Amino acid sequence: MAKKPMLLRDLFHETLKDIYFAENKILKTLPKMAKAAHSKDLQRAFSKHLRETEGQVKRLNQIFKIIGKPARGKTCTAINGIAEEGAEIMKDFKGMPALDAGLLAAAQAVEHYEMSRYGTLRTWAEELGMPDAAKLLQATLDEEKATDLALTKIAKSVVNVEAEQELVS
Amino acid sequence: MAKKPMLLRDLFHETLKDIYFAENKILKTLPKMAKAAHSKDLQRAFSKHLRETEGQVKRLNQIFKIIGKPARGKTCTAINGIAEEGAEIMKDFKGMPALDAGLLAAAQAVEHYEMSRYGTLRTWAEELGMPDAAKLLQATLDEEKATDLALTKIAKSVVNVEAEQELVS
Repeated sequence: MAKKPMLLRDLFHETLKDIYFAENKILKTLPKMAKAAHSKDLQRAFSKHLRETEGQVKRLNQIFKIIGKPARGKTCTAINGIAEEGAEIMKDFKGMPALDAGLLAAAQAVEHYEMSRYGTLRTWAEELGMPDAAKLLQATLDEEKATDLALTKIAKSVVNVEAEQELVS
Repeated sequence: MAKKPMLLRDLFHETLKDIYFAENKILKTLPKMAKAAHSKDLQRAFSKHLRETEGQVKRLNQIFKIIGKPARGKTCTAINGIAEEGAEIMKDFKGMPALDAGLLAAAQAVEHYEMSRYGTLRTWAEELGMPDAAKLLQATLDEEKATDLALTKIAKSVVNVEAEQELVS
Protein backbone atom coordinates (compact mmCIF):
# COMPACT_ATOMS: atom_id res chain seq x y z
CA MET A 1 0.00 0.00 0.00
CA ALA A 2 1.46 3.37 -1.01
CA LYS A 3 2.08 5.82 1.80
CA LYS A 4 -0.18 8.88 1.80
CA PRO A 5 1.84 11.86 0.51
CA MET A 6 2.66 14.25 3.32
CA LEU A 7 2.04 17.77 2.11
CA LEU A 8 2.47 21.23 3.51
CA ARG A 9 -1.07 21.19 4.91
CA ASP A 10 -0.21 18.02 6.87
CA LEU A 11 2.94 19.66 8.21
CA PHE A 12 0.88 22.73 9.15
CA HIS A 13 -1.58 20.55 11.07
CA GLU A 14 1.22 18.63 12.86
CA THR A 15 2.98 21.85 13.86
CA LEU A 16 -0.30 23.37 15.04
CA LYS A 17 -0.77 20.37 17.37
CA ASP A 18 2.83 20.82 18.57
CA ILE A 19 2.39 24.50 19.54
CA TYR A 20 -1.05 23.76 21.03
CA PHE A 21 0.58 21.28 23.40
CA ALA A 22 3.38 23.79 24.11
CA GLU A 23 0.97 26.64 24.97
CA ASN A 24 -0.99 24.41 27.32
CA LYS A 25 2.26 23.37 29.01
CA ILE A 26 3.20 27.05 29.38
CA LEU A 27 -0.21 27.79 30.96
CA LYS A 28 0.67 25.29 33.70
CA THR A 29 4.28 26.48 34.13
CA LEU A 30 3.89 30.28 34.26
CA PRO A 31 2.08 30.41 37.64
CA LYS A 32 4.95 28.39 39.19
CA MET A 33 7.52 30.76 37.71
CA ALA A 34 5.59 33.84 38.90
CA LYS A 35 5.46 32.35 42.40
CA ALA A 36 9.18 31.55 42.41
CA ALA A 37 10.42 34.95 41.14
CA HIS A 38 11.89 37.39 43.66
CA SER A 39 11.51 40.56 41.59
CA LYS A 40 8.06 42.17 41.56
CA ASP A 41 8.63 43.26 37.94
CA LEU A 42 9.31 39.69 36.93
CA GLN A 43 6.25 38.37 38.83
CA ARG A 44 4.11 40.93 37.02
CA ALA A 45 5.65 40.08 33.63
CA PHE A 46 4.92 36.36 34.12
CA SER A 47 1.33 37.06 35.25
CA LYS A 48 0.75 39.34 32.26
CA HIS A 49 2.11 36.70 29.89
CA LEU A 50 -0.17 34.10 31.47
CA ARG A 51 -3.21 36.16 30.46
CA GLU A 52 -1.76 36.65 26.97
CA THR A 53 -1.16 32.91 26.65
CA GLU A 54 -4.84 32.25 27.39
CA GLY A 55 -5.71 34.49 24.44
CA GLN A 56 -3.14 32.72 22.26
CA VAL A 57 -4.75 29.34 22.99
CA LYS A 58 -8.11 30.81 21.91
CA ARG A 59 -6.52 31.91 18.61
CA LEU A 60 -5.20 28.37 18.09
CA ASN A 61 -8.72 27.03 18.67
CA GLN A 62 -9.95 29.35 15.90
CA ILE A 63 -7.25 28.07 13.52
CA PHE A 64 -8.18 24.44 14.21
CA LYS A 65 -11.74 25.45 13.23
CA ILE A 66 -10.48 27.08 10.00
CA ILE A 67 -8.75 23.85 8.94
CA GLY A 68 -11.71 21.75 10.10
CA LYS A 69 -9.80 19.67 12.65
CA PRO A 70 -10.38 19.11 16.36
CA ALA A 71 -8.21 21.25 18.69
CA ARG A 72 -5.82 18.62 19.98
CA GLY A 73 -2.16 18.72 20.99
CA LYS A 74 0.59 16.16 20.51
CA THR A 75 3.57 15.82 22.80
CA CYS A 76 6.17 18.48 22.00
CA THR A 77 9.51 17.12 23.22
CA ALA A 78 11.14 20.50 22.62
CA ILE A 79 8.95 22.42 25.08
CA ASN A 80 9.17 19.55 27.55
CA GLY A 81 12.98 19.80 27.41
CA ILE A 82 12.96 23.59 27.82
CA ALA A 83 10.50 23.32 30.73
CA GLU A 84 12.65 20.63 32.37
CA GLU A 85 15.66 22.96 32.28
CA GLY A 86 13.54 25.70 33.84
CA ALA A 87 12.37 23.36 36.61
CA GLU A 88 15.98 22.37 37.30
CA ILE A 89 16.93 26.04 37.70
CA MET A 90 14.01 26.64 40.09
CA LYS A 91 15.28 23.71 42.18
CA ASP A 92 19.06 24.42 42.07
CA PHE A 93 18.77 28.19 42.53
CA LYS A 94 15.90 28.24 45.09
CA GLY A 95 16.51 31.14 47.50
CA MET A 96 19.76 32.03 45.69
CA PRO A 97 20.68 35.50 44.37
CA ALA A 98 20.82 34.34 40.75
CA LEU A 99 17.36 32.72 40.71
CA ASP A 100 15.62 35.52 38.81
CA ALA A 101 18.35 35.65 36.17
CA GLY A 102 17.88 31.90 35.67
CA LEU A 103 14.08 32.21 35.47
CA LEU A 104 14.45 34.96 32.88
CA ALA A 105 16.81 32.82 30.78
CA ALA A 106 14.32 29.93 30.90
CA ALA A 107 11.42 32.21 29.95
CA GLN A 108 13.36 33.69 27.02
CA ALA A 109 14.19 30.19 25.72
CA VAL A 110 10.43 29.49 25.75
CA GLU A 111 9.65 32.78 23.95
CA HIS A 112 12.21 32.02 21.25
CA TYR A 113 10.81 28.54 20.70
CA GLU A 114 7.35 30.03 20.25
CA MET A 115 8.64 32.79 17.95
CA SER A 116 10.21 30.20 15.64
CA ARG A 117 7.02 28.09 15.55
CA TYR A 118 4.63 31.02 15.00
CA GLY A 119 6.88 32.51 12.31
CA THR A 120 6.92 29.19 10.48
CA LEU A 121 3.16 28.65 10.82
CA ARG A 122 2.39 32.19 9.65
CA THR A 123 4.50 31.70 6.48
CA TRP A 124 2.84 28.36 5.76
CA ALA A 125 -0.68 29.77 6.37
CA GLU A 126 0.02 32.47 3.77
CA GLU A 127 1.26 29.92 1.24
CA LEU A 128 -1.70 27.63 1.89
CA GLY A 129 -4.10 30.51 1.15
CA MET A 130 -5.43 30.99 4.68
CA PRO A 131 -5.16 34.75 5.28
CA ASP A 132 -7.38 34.66 8.39
CA ALA A 133 -5.18 32.03 10.03
CA ALA A 134 -2.06 33.97 8.99
CA LYS A 135 -3.45 37.09 10.67
CA LEU A 136 -4.16 35.25 13.92
CA LEU A 137 -0.66 33.72 13.91
CA GLN A 138 0.93 37.12 13.21
CA ALA A 139 -0.94 38.64 16.16
CA THR A 140 0.48 36.01 18.50
CA LEU A 141 3.97 36.33 16.98
CA ASP A 142 3.87 40.08 17.67
CA GLU A 143 2.89 39.42 21.30
CA GLU A 144 5.71 36.89 21.76
CA LYS A 145 8.27 39.35 20.37
CA ALA A 146 7.00 42.09 22.68
CA THR A 147 7.20 39.73 25.67
CA ASP A 148 10.76 38.77 24.76
CA LEU A 149 11.76 42.45 24.56
CA ALA A 150 10.10 43.18 27.92
CA LEU A 151 11.97 40.24 29.50
CA THR A 152 15.29 41.49 28.06
CA LYS A 153 14.71 44.85 29.76
CA ILE A 154 13.92 43.18 33.09
CA ALA A 155 16.94 40.88 32.64
CA LYS A 156 19.26 43.86 32.46
CA SER A 157 17.92 45.42 35.66
CA VAL A 158 17.70 42.12 37.55
CA VAL A 159 21.24 41.19 36.55
CA ASN A 160 22.51 44.59 37.72
CA VAL A 161 21.03 44.04 41.15
CA GLU A 162 22.43 40.49 41.32
CA ALA A 163 25.88 41.64 40.30
CA GLU A 164 25.87 44.22 43.09
CA GLN A 165 24.77 41.61 45.59
CA GLU A 166 27.68 39.45 44.53
CA LEU A 167 30.16 42.25 45.01
CA VAL A 168 29.06 42.66 48.63
CA SER A 169 28.60 38.94 49.32
CA MET B 1 26.14 22.10 56.12
CA ALA B 2 24.96 25.31 54.46
CA LYS B 3 24.39 25.13 50.72
CA LYS B 4 26.94 27.04 48.63
CA PRO B 5 25.29 30.25 47.36
CA MET B 6 24.59 30.01 43.66
CA LEU B 7 25.60 33.27 42.04
CA LEU B 8 25.46 34.72 38.57
CA ARG B 9 28.92 33.34 37.77
CA ASP B 10 27.68 29.83 38.61
CA LEU B 11 24.66 30.30 36.38
CA PHE B 12 26.96 31.56 33.61
CA HIS B 13 29.10 28.43 33.92
CA GLU B 14 26.06 26.10 33.93
CA THR B 15 24.59 27.79 30.86
CA LEU B 16 27.94 27.67 29.08
CA LYS B 17 28.03 23.89 29.62
CA ASP B 18 24.45 23.71 28.32
CA ILE B 19 25.20 25.51 25.03
CA TYR B 20 28.51 23.60 24.65
CA PHE B 21 26.53 20.35 24.72
CA ALA B 22 23.98 21.85 22.31
CA GLU B 23 26.61 22.98 19.77
CA ASN B 24 28.23 19.55 19.80
CA LYS B 25 24.83 17.95 19.23
CA ILE B 26 24.23 20.33 16.30
CA LEU B 27 27.63 19.38 14.81
CA LYS B 28 26.40 15.76 14.64
CA THR B 29 22.91 16.64 13.37
CA LEU B 30 23.65 19.14 10.57
CA PRO B 31 25.33 16.64 8.18
CA LYS B 32 22.23 14.40 8.44
CA MET B 33 19.97 17.36 7.68
CA ALA B 34 22.14 18.46 4.73
CA LYS B 35 21.98 14.90 3.34
CA ALA B 36 18.19 14.71 3.76
CA ALA B 37 17.36 18.09 2.17
CA HIS B 38 16.02 18.12 -1.40
CA SER B 39 16.78 21.78 -2.20
CA LYS B 40 20.37 22.57 -3.18
CA ASP B 41 20.06 25.97 -1.47
CA LEU B 42 19.09 24.27 1.75
CA GLN B 43 21.90 21.72 1.50
CA ARG B 44 24.37 24.57 1.02
CA ALA B 45 22.90 26.55 3.94
CA PHE B 46 23.25 23.56 6.27
CA SER B 47 26.84 22.89 5.14
CA LYS B 48 27.76 26.55 5.62
CA HIS B 49 26.24 26.54 9.09
CA LEU B 50 28.20 23.38 9.94
CA ARG B 51 31.46 25.25 9.30
CA GLU B 52 30.21 28.22 11.33
CA THR B 53 29.26 25.92 14.20
CA GLU B 54 32.82 24.58 14.31
CA GLY B 55 34.02 28.15 14.80
CA GLN B 56 31.39 28.74 17.48
CA VAL B 57 32.63 25.73 19.46
CA LYS B 58 36.15 27.18 19.29
CA ARG B 59 34.82 30.45 20.75
CA LEU B 60 33.18 28.51 23.58
CA ASN B 61 36.54 26.82 24.29
CA GLN B 62 38.09 30.29 24.61
CA ILE B 63 35.39 31.36 27.08
CA PHE B 64 35.93 28.26 29.23
CA LYS B 65 39.60 29.34 29.34
CA ILE B 66 38.63 32.88 30.37
CA ILE B 67 36.63 31.56 33.35
CA GLY B 68 39.33 28.99 34.16
CA LYS B 69 37.12 25.93 33.80
CA PRO B 70 37.48 22.82 31.64
CA ALA B 71 35.46 22.83 28.40
CA ARG B 72 32.78 20.33 29.25
CA GLY B 73 29.11 20.01 28.33
CA LYS B 74 26.15 18.86 30.37
CA THR B 75 23.06 17.28 28.90
CA CYS B 76 20.78 19.94 27.47
CA THR B 77 17.27 18.47 27.45
CA ALA B 78 16.00 21.40 25.38
CA ILE B 79 18.25 20.76 22.38
CA ASN B 80 17.65 17.02 22.70
CA GLY B 81 13.91 17.67 22.48
CA ILE B 82 14.26 19.99 19.48
CA ALA B 83 16.56 17.48 17.73
CA GLU B 84 14.11 14.67 18.42
CA GLU B 85 11.33 16.63 16.71
CA GLY B 86 13.65 17.20 13.73
CA ALA B 87 14.47 13.48 13.52
CA GLU B 88 10.76 12.67 13.59
CA ILE B 89 10.14 15.01 10.65
CA MET B 90 13.01 13.44 8.68
CA LYS B 91 11.38 10.03 9.25
CA ASP B 92 7.70 10.96 8.68
CA PHE B 93 8.33 13.22 5.68
CA LYS B 94 11.07 11.17 3.97
CA GLY B 95 10.65 11.49 0.19
CA MET B 96 7.59 13.73 0.68
CA PRO B 97 7.07 17.15 -0.92
CA ALA B 98 6.95 18.96 2.43
CA LEU B 99 10.25 17.51 3.76
CA ASP B 100 12.33 20.65 3.16
CA ALA B 101 9.73 22.90 4.79
CA GLY B 102 9.86 20.61 7.84
CA LEU B 103 13.67 20.60 7.93
CA LEU B 104 13.67 24.39 7.76
CA ALA B 105 11.22 24.64 10.64
CA ALA B 106 13.41 22.32 12.73
CA ALA B 107 16.55 24.29 11.89
CA GLN B 108 14.88 27.58 12.80
CA ALA B 109 13.78 26.18 16.15
CA VAL B 110 17.45 25.32 16.80
CA GLU B 111 18.61 28.80 15.74
CA HIS B 112 16.10 30.45 18.06
CA TYR B 113 17.18 28.30 20.98
CA GLU B 114 20.78 29.32 20.38
CA MET B 115 19.87 32.99 19.96
CA SER B 116 18.16 32.99 23.36
CA ARG B 117 21.12 31.29 25.05
CA TYR B 118 23.80 33.50 23.45
CA GLY B 119 21.81 36.67 24.16
CA THR B 120 21.52 35.68 27.82
CA LEU B 121 25.19 34.70 28.13
CA ARG B 122 26.34 37.92 26.45
CA THR B 123 24.32 40.05 28.92
CA TRP B 124 25.70 38.08 31.88
CA ALA B 125 29.31 38.29 30.59
CA GLU B 126 28.97 42.08 30.44
CA GLU B 127 27.59 42.25 33.98
CA LEU B 128 30.29 39.90 35.28
CA GLY B 129 32.99 42.19 33.86
CA MET B 130 34.20 39.87 31.09
CA PRO B 131 34.26 42.09 27.97
CA ASP B 132 36.33 39.58 25.94
CA ALA B 133 33.83 36.80 26.61
CA ALA B 134 30.96 39.19 25.81
CA LYS B 135 32.58 40.02 22.45
CA LEU B 136 32.98 36.33 21.54
CA LEU B 137 29.35 35.64 22.50
CA GLN B 138 28.12 38.64 20.51
CA ALA B 139 30.02 37.40 17.42
CA THR B 140 28.25 34.05 17.62
CA LEU B 141 24.89 35.70 18.31
CA ASP B 142 25.30 37.78 15.14
CA GLU B 143 26.07 34.63 13.13
CA GLU B 144 23.01 32.83 14.49
CA LYS B 145 20.76 35.78 13.62
CA ALA B 146 22.19 35.91 10.08
CA THR B 147 21.64 32.15 9.68
CA ASP B 148 18.04 32.48 10.84
CA LEU B 149 17.41 35.27 8.31
CA ALA B 150 18.99 33.21 5.52
CA LEU B 151 16.79 30.24 6.45
CA THR B 152 13.68 32.45 6.42
CA LYS B 153 14.50 33.50 2.83
CA ILE B 154 14.99 29.89 1.74
CA ALA B 155 11.79 28.90 3.59
CA LYS B 156 9.75 31.32 1.50
CA SER B 157 11.13 29.99 -1.82
CA VAL B 158 10.94 26.33 -0.76
CA VAL B 159 7.38 26.74 0.44
CA ASN B 160 6.39 28.39 -2.84
CA VAL B 161 7.65 25.40 -4.78
CA GLU B 162 5.89 22.96 -2.45
CA ALA B 163 2.62 24.82 -2.69
CA GLU B 164 2.75 24.62 -6.50
CA GLN B 165 3.51 20.91 -6.33
CA GLU B 166 0.45 20.45 -4.18
CA LEU B 167 -1.80 22.28 -6.63
CA VAL B 168 -0.80 19.89 -9.43
CA SER B 169 -0.75 16.75 -7.25
